[in-house]
Amino acid sequence: MEHQHERNYKDPPPAPLLDLRELRKWSFYRASIADRVGYLGIAWAFGGMIFVLVYCTSGISGGHLNPAVTFGLLLARKVSLIRAVAYMVAQCIGATIGVMFVIFFTNSDDQQNSDGVVNVVSRNYSKGAGLGAEIIGTFVLVYTVFSATDPKRNARDSHIPVLAPLPIGFAVFVVHLALIPITGTGINPARSLGTALIYRSTTEAVNDLWIFWVGPFLGALAAAVYHQYILRAGAVKTLETIRALGSIGSRPLV
Amino acid sequence: MEHQHERNYKDPPPAPLLDLRELRKWSFYRASIADRVGYLGIAWAFGGMIFVLVYCTSGISGGHLNPAVTFGLLLARKVSLIRAVAYMVAQCIGATIGVMFVIFFTNSDDQQNSDGVVNVVSRNYSKGAGLGAEIIGTFVLVYTVFSATDPKRNARDSHIPVLAPLPIGFAVFVVHLALIPITGTGINPARSLGTALIYRSTTEAVNDLWIFWVGPFLGALAAAVYHQYILRAGAVKTLETIRALGSIGSRPLV
Amino acid sequence: MEHQHERNYKDPPPAPLLDLRELRKWSFYRASIADRVGYLGIAWAFGGMIFVLVYCTSGISGGHLNPAVTFGLLLARKVSLIRAVAYMVAQCIGATIGVMFVIFFTNSDDQQNSDGVVNVVSRNYSKGAGLGAEIIGTFVLVYTVFSATDPKRNARDSHIPVLAPLPIGFAVFVVHLALIPITGTGINPARSLGTALIYRSTTEAVNDLWIFWVGPFLGALAAAVYHQYILRAGAVKTLETIRALGSIGSRPLV
Amino acid sequence: MEHQHERNYKDPPPAPLLDLRELRKWSFYRASIADRVGYLGIAWAFGGMIFVLVYCTSGISGGHLNPAVTFGLLLARKVSLIRAVAYMVAQCIGATIGVMFVIFFTNSDDQQNSDGVVNVVSRNYSKGAGLGAEIIGTFVLVYTVFSATDPKRNARDSHIPVLAPLPIGFAVFVVHLALIPITGTGINPARSLGTALIYRSTTEAVNDLWIFWVGPFLGALAAAVYHQYILRAGAVKTLETIRALGSIGSRPLV
Repeated sequence: MEHQHERNYKDPPPAPLLDLRELRKWSFYRASIADRVGYLGIAWAFGGMIFVLVYCTSGISGGHLNPAVTFGLLLARKVSLIRAVAYMVAQCIGATIGVMFVIFFTNSDDQQNSDGVVNVVSRNYSKGAGLGAEIIGTFVLVYTVFSATDPKRNARDSHIPVLAPLPIGFAVFVVHLALIPITGTGINPARSLGTALIYRSTTEAVNDLWIFWVGPFLGALAAAVYHQYILRAGAVKTLETIRALGSIGSRPLV
Repeated sequence: MEHQHERNYKDPPPAPLLDLRELRKWSFYRASIADRVGYLGIAWAFGGMIFVLVYCTSGISGGHLNPAVTFGLLLARKVSLIRAVAYMVAQCIGATIGVMFVIFFTNSDDQQNSDGVVNVVSRNYSKGAGLGAEIIGTFVLVYTVFSATDPKRNARDSHIPVLAPLPIGFAVFVVHLALIPITGTGINPARSLGTALIYRSTTEAVNDLWIFWVGPFLGALAAAVYHQYILRAGAVKTLETIRALGSIGSRPLV
Repeated sequence: MEHQHERNYKDPPPAPLLDLRELRKWSFYRASIADRVGYLGIAWAFGGMIFVLVYCTSGISGGHLNPAVTFGLLLARKVSLIRAVAYMVAQCIGATIGVMFVIFFTNSDDQQNSDGVVNVVSRNYSKGAGLGAEIIGTFVLVYTVFSATDPKRNARDSHIPVLAPLPIGFAVFVVHLALIPITGTGINPARSLGTALIYRSTTEAVNDLWIFWVGPFLGALAAAVYHQYILRAGAVKTLETIRALGSIGSRPLV
Repeated sequence: MEHQHERNYKDPPPAPLLDLRELRKWSFYRASIADRVGYLGIAWAFGGMIFVLVYCTSGISGGHLNPAVTFGLLLARKVSLIRAVAYMVAQCIGATIGVMFVIFFTNSDDQQNSDGVVNVVSRNYSKGAGLGAEIIGTFVLVYTVFSATDPKRNARDSHIPVLAPLPIGFAVFVVHLALIPITGTGINPARSLGTALIYRSTTEAVNDLWIFWVGPFLGALAAAVYHQYILRAGAVKTLETIRALGSIGSRPLV
């Protein structure tokens, strides 16, 4: 539905019909995806993949895919310090290799064009707003992980554990819907580090990197404090009451 | 693909290339989201978030996030009057703080631009249609909550309780798909109150607020009457018959 | 971003800025929805709603919401003839009242504009293609219902029954994605009847109505024959073998 | 919102209002779908359908719908060689009949227009990138199948088996989101063969077919080696430890 206009009006130079340099580049792939898929598709891709990965790895490493989640579980004494550090190093190496993999496959030599790949605070937001968004987003994720894996709650509410990987995936999904326009959605320091390392010529990605480590770790800390020290105090008391009343049915309650 | 026209035609004044006032405003964020996400994305954001929140809080407060749901559960004698009132007050305070939070993060000083934030009846619909839509939408939600949490049905149909938070989230999702063009989807008086309080300079939001309290409470009342007094009468009878026949397997039926 | 052109060019008459007749009409609502939601949104609305409704009603009527599904379950001897007929009558009355409800709320007096409401075979397809699409679509739905509710399979594969309403909702979702451009997706004769009754001035809706009864009933018949007489023959044999080998664990296998 | 321009500007010839040849063709159907549904809709259609099909067939054939998955399960000694070959032949025949079915229903006589139907490596990618994408995509799928069906993990993590068909469907969904722009997403050699057979006049589809057999089989091989020989070694050891410690509760651990 394009149309030209009269001679006394100067058109901008027309776009070339076929820009060969544009082919075979990651930016082409990404533009094609974003256009066709939108925020909703990006959010589904991340939420769906985390659901599948947590499902697949929960029997092996307990679903440790994210340094902020591992930090939260460390604070809650669900993983030892040595193991937590080892997981975090593995997560950062894995994320970096993942980015290299995608670049290798798509033959991208275009390290300037990092839009939508690296995590940076959007120009429309202050650094403080970006940091706050990362704190809240990671709080939602880590708090959902605590809810899904708390053995005491699992015993009390028998319907809780069955869906463990599903709410974690959905938490990632809704946080992406909210944070994509603000920070591109970090909430995983390993991912932010991996893309910033590979696209280190993108100054903002390197400059903003601290936000995507400090924010998620503060969010995980808040979730751990809230869940372990505030809620659990009440939960344990409730549980002791229930136990005193005796167990109903053949399954022990704790 | 913008273009100017000749002198013998008066163009409206061109939009500035970069309107600095537009940056850092919530309206900018919202426009960007709506454009990229559509009704489907908004519905997923609400449905997904309610799924995650009900999942996370069902072990603590029983998933009380909405005064209309709490009212329905009060009518069904599943929560005491004092506790119900306390929950409702907490829900309204929480919703108001939530709106303040978003405004703080996005530095919005634009209280005129409340489109898509406050709940108002769309100009294309009468107030009566808006009220009816809120009644029906909340009926669907509260009826799903009753179905998901009825201990008698859980015992009879062992597949029911496992998915409790999921159908509640899906009910919120489908009701949003239907009601966004009519009222922006209230079905939660606390949310409508919180946005109307913060955006109280938007006259319609304050004027229509009664619709988003009366409608959801009437919907919850209808769901409670239908589920507790009409369906349960039959269900209890059926159950007594089953009990008389003896229990099958080791689990007691009630 | 509208613009006029010069005098030596005849514009079509401009659209009125505000067509009052357009307001308060269902067509306005529907156009707005379709534009903003697309095939994917329509498919999610139907799939999500059927998931919620099957979840909510499975303890009451066994989730009978569709004459074709009821017919399939009648053929499989899971419901008596009298009860099946009563369900079908109730389904048709419910669907008709539902359409009247929507019209009442949206004040629609526009019975000519039935696009996207009634089920008709799209002009791009032959009546035979429409009939075939309805047969296959209903086969997928009813076969999924059989799979989700077969007590023998439930016993053998303990993971099957937990998700019963979810695959039924997903079956409705994927069938909608495939059939919307062909027939608007019937697969529920009650829905097709209800909309055709209310929009009986739309000649095609009345003329094509037989397709949306014959197709779904043939699809349900095919699913019943396939599941009950072909698969079950093998399943029963397998089961008897398993029973002969003794039960493993404390749960009886049948 | 169309408009003509002045005489001193040459319009391209206008599109015919009604191109009769365009009607009744599959290409019309596909274009309509793609436009209205996008990558996200295509991904949901495949993911949702696989969820429903695995759910429905898992009690009959164990959900064998894909030669690559069958090959992976053969390597893991979960299916005999004879049965695996029989399944693969059946899968290829079924896929070919499926394509013929769609063509028959939509009266398509347009075997030139195979865009979006056959699997080919997109012009923007090298054959090696396409092969790599198919290997990785099938690895994700087959690894998820192993995770969902491993009886040892099921015993250890009681929340795993309940959701078996759901993560498999989600794996198909996320792999489609990633691979549609690269290869159209094969990851199922039977589907690639069936479409290439019917659209054999599309030279690229026939030339690229090896990629859609070699890639998925290599991906399945990698998943089998990784899951069975690397992870299981550790899993078995862990399990023996647990067994030695005695079983907790009444259910035997293995």
